Amino acid sequence: MAQLPVEILLVEDNSDDIELALHALRRGGLANRVEIVRDGEQALDFLFCRGLYRHRSLAQPPRVVLLDLKLPKADGLQVLKELKSNPVTRPIPVVILTASREEQDLVRSYQLGVNSYIQKPVDFEQFRRTVKELGMFWLVINQPPPQAAFQVG
Amino acid sequence: MAQLPVEILLVEDNSDDIELALHALRRGGLANRVEIVRDGEQALDFLFCRGLYRHRSLAQPPRVVLLDLKLPKADGLQVLKELKSNPVTRPIPVVILTASREEQDLVRSYQLGVNSYIQKPVDFEQFRRTVKELGMFWLVINQPPPQAAFQVG
Repeated sequence: MAQLPVEILLVEDNSDDIELALHALRRGGLANRVEIVRDGEQALDFLFCRGLYRHRSLAQPPRVVLLDLKLPKADGLQVLKELKSNPVTRPIPVVILTASREEQDLVRSYQLGVNSYIQKPVDFEQFRRTVKELGMFWLVINQPPPQAAFQVG
Repeated sequence: MAQLPVEILLVEDNSDDIELALHALRRGGLANRVEIVRDGEQALDFLFCRGLYRHRSLAQPPRVVLLDLKLPKADGLQVLKELKSNPVTRPIPVVILTASREEQDLVRSYQLGVNSYIQKPVDFEQFRRTVKELGMFWLVINQPPPQAAFQVG
């Protein structure tokens, strides 16, 4: 496991989409430290430093979580709800990245406090550009929450 | 006043920074519908459709609010707190755009539920690029909350 903190947590169960996203991030010079988990429970374990990830520190969250909605075990909205309703994890930037065109998913995500919501473009080249732009924004332009934001008490 | 909804609400009291931001947005083809307000009270009036802005509709918020921190009348953190603690306005994407290098501002912003936090680069050319990138992300890549997200009750 890498010593340096993970920059992107990619929560995605579709192997094609994982490959595409990694490819786009790599081409943008942004794929340095990406962790991939394939279901909602693993995502929560990672972010709350439980189970397999109990040796991680809550004070070193990823700079951004890219979260699919349709996921095994716990779906994206459940993961989002747990993250944003807990002051320990609330500051972590979460971007929904989904194929869903359901208005209800968009409404719920914003009501739960998502940072940003992106519909996966169907076109390959547009998907690549979108992932590159979002990587640029969240890893380069956005200032992530500092450690002090995760000290609760 | 424009018939079409405002896309960016820029809350900024520094005229130089307003000019720079508008210039950068224009060069990125992103300055179509920008509304500028110069203090925190006016920002809240705009977003809650009060006072001068009582004829606006709560269901047509801007796609993104670019919010400075140091502002007359009500500062950026007060504005952020009011927006994010009210279910009517919580879904509106708010990006802090500030010269502040204070860690405490960053911590408080994330704890209050900011969508993104950007430190204004001191360098002119970098500022221009940053505003263009953020405009691209929030006006083109991000899917804004739909009207249904603002129907409360």
